[in-house]
Amino acid sequence: MSTIAIGQAGGPTAVINASLVGFLEGLDEHHTVYGIMNGYQGLAENDLELLEGGMLHWVLSHRFVPGACLGSGRFLFTEEKISQAVRNLKKRDIHTLVFIGGNGTMAALQKISHEAKAIGYELQVIGIPKTVDNDLAGTDHAPGFGSAARYVALSTRDISKDLEAMRNFEQVRIIETMGRNAGWLAAASGFLKQSETDGPHLVCIPEVPIEQGQLLQQIKEMVREYGIVTIVVSEGVTLKGASQVKKAVVQGRSVLGGISKQLEDIVREHLGLNARAEILGMNQRSSIMAISSQDQLEAYETGKKAAEILKAGKTEVMVAIQYLDSIRYTSILEDCPLEIVASKGERLLPEEFISNQKRYFRWLKHLIGDNIPSYPPALRRRMIDENLYSGSK
Amino acid sequence: MSTIAIGQAGGPTAVINASLVGFLEGLDEHHTVYGIMNGYQGLAENDLELLEGGMLHWVLSHRFVPGACLGSGRFLFTEEKISQAVRNLKKRDIHTLVFIGGNGTMAALQKISHEAKAIGYELQVIGIPKTVDNDLAGTDHAPGFGSAARYVALSTRDISKDLEAMRNFEQVRIIETMGRNAGWLAAASGFLKQSETDGPHLVCIPEVPIEQGQLLQQIKEMVREYGIVTIVVSEGVTLKGASQVKKAVVQGRSVLGGISKQLEDIVREHLGLNARAEILGMNQRSSIMAISSQDQLEAYETGKKAAEILKAGKTEVMVAIQYLDSIRYTSILEDCPLEIVASKGERLLPEEFISNQKRYFRWLKHLIGDNIPSYPPALRRRMIDENLYSGSK
Repeated sequence: MSTIAIGQAGGPTAVINASLVGFLEGLDEHHTVYGIMNGYQGLAENDLELLEGGMLHWVLSHRFVPGACLGSGRFLFTEEKISQAVRNLKKRDIHTLVFIGGNGTMAALQKISHEAKAIGYELQVIGIPKTVDNDLAGTDHAPGFGSAARYVALSTRDISKDLEAMRNFEQVRIIETMGRNAGWLAAASGFLKQSETDGPHLVCIPEVPIEQGQLLQQIKEMVREYGIVTIVVSEGVTLKGASQVKKAVVQGRSVLGGISKQLEDIVREHLGLNARAEILGMNQRSSIMAISSQDQLEAYETGKKAAEILKAGKTEVMVAIQYLDSIRYTSILEDCPLEIVASKGERLLPEEFISNQKRYFRWLKHLIGDNIPSYPPALRRRMIDENLYSGSK
Repeated sequence: MSTIAIGQAGGPTAVINASLVGFLEGLDEHHTVYGIMNGYQGLAENDLELLEGGMLHWVLSHRFVPGACLGSGRFLFTEEKISQAVRNLKKRDIHTLVFIGGNGTMAALQKISHEAKAIGYELQVIGIPKTVDNDLAGTDHAPGFGSAARYVALSTRDISKDLEAMRNFEQVRIIETMGRNAGWLAAASGFLKQSETDGPHLVCIPEVPIEQGQLLQQIKEMVREYGIVTIVVSEGVTLKGASQVKKAVVQGRSVLGGISKQLEDIVREHLGLNARAEILGMNQRSSIMAISSQDQLEAYETGKKAAEILKAGKTEVMVAIQYLDSIRYTSILEDCPLEIVASKGERLLPEEFISNQKRYFRWLKHLIGDNIPSYPPALRRRMIDENLYSGSK
């Protein structure tokens, strides 16, 4: 009966295709569905493809594949392009628009809805949450985050083990995670830590700018205590008074990255220790090596929920996950008005999680998923042989 | 009866502890075994610990844990320190020395053996192979490589999928793998590639220096053809006429890294495409996310084989894996004289594998291990929409 268009926008995740598949599988058969190619750019440029036959089959085969099979992307959505987008929808008689994405995607959906209203075109818009940064408001968490958090936690534990073995060569590793303004991912790095001697020893998040002197003092003390220090920093962390470290500016958007390298230089210069910066990179958002089964499932279910919302006729809403019980994990899917998502802005790591790590990890537990083997305890004696760290000033 | 010392040297791997455990479990109970702390440094500085009781139990619990639980490291082994090492062995009446490591480790073992002979001290030395670079001669391959190759192949496939989705924002990704002089790991990146359109599209190995003009031409053509290009480079790759890109020099050893960033800059400047360098980093040698079960098993078995060699009384040998049949994978463990390991030098990717990728992958198949889901084919139509790549000159 009705004609629908669905797109994927922003940075892909390891599970964003599961949401697309969940939505398609949640629809009744009498719908006509277009896939929007390459995010909002495809909508503005009328690059849509009918999801039927072989093409539909191909899309559905992506449930467990990372990336965004329709093509995603970043796109500067001007007034003119928004009105072009609505004209393109009208041309094909599409009255429902669904996008899977983060903050920017939800804001754009709302603008499109307003433009449609302004020209008197009936358009239902529905958002499906997706972000590895977990900075989307209106939902307890967003699909994509759990798997990224798992990747960060596993990487931090293993890179720390490696550093522990190499302590006569290197003393400090600085692991840089994603997280433009919110520290959810970096803070997840300690999830598998079993004792004080295990890494990460320090975690820096964008919510709390770094005091250089204080950080250096902590590193010095920890190297004396443990022999090594594994530090985890979000890409968006700043040194107090400085701005975010950028790698490049592309299409008006800053690509962050490099704070770990800056800290590496500071540690070398001020402490004379051998430090190494490590950027965890694109694997955080795309690797199937660390898929959380809970995250995969929720990605699929939020997509399916969007199909329900569609049938219920609601508009200007985003699917939201509400966390009910953190002991025996239960959650329900709801819808949250896009206006609330927008008005709340970027969701930072709340104070209660910053000041109480245990509470954060209790919340995180079910999203990261299980089946992670634990390691034997670090042998403390071997960690404090001071002769090895004579390089430390 | 006899007293033995065992150590781990060089960069750790995800499976080096399995070799240690294999060796210990292969010994008869009447041996006294010392663990050498932090590689050759511990031997020179007499930092050995008796592996018995709680300490032995603790070491044995590391079979599936990455890093090197005794401590590894890099150490400049001078004549003076070698003779000190032999004196330390003599003091404790240790007549068998076993080290798990790569080329440098095997060369050091031989020097120690020569020094012992020179002073008339009876010393049996045995090497257990370990390297993620796979550049160790005398063995078909070394434990540690299979898991690292698996990590590289999985990462390349997923990062390519991510790039495919982001092609209106980024066109070129340059993934940097380990591999100081040998291209085994970088060449493994294409193992999961199913069609021409999948990444990696270009692979650069140290055995073949890059011709800048030719590389830029290939990238240009491939972006026109596929919309994106995923390039994989070993850290040791050079631009023709230039030297290796170094990150730092620590304790006289160059830490390589940065060729991907150099290529990123060249691509931006000459082709005006948005490129991003990605260094896969320490996860390659330490992540349990991509453990190859075959590699894990072989690491353990090579350790056990060392215990057999010990009982057979052989000296100045390294455990070697001989590949018998590439169809139905079978291999046997042998011993190879350290002299041969040293004389053959670093084992580069052979010409037959450089020129015939299929042959290389047939060899690699069993080391990377199975249980990797395949992906649906790339949809070629979406890859060649030229409008999207107007940034390309």
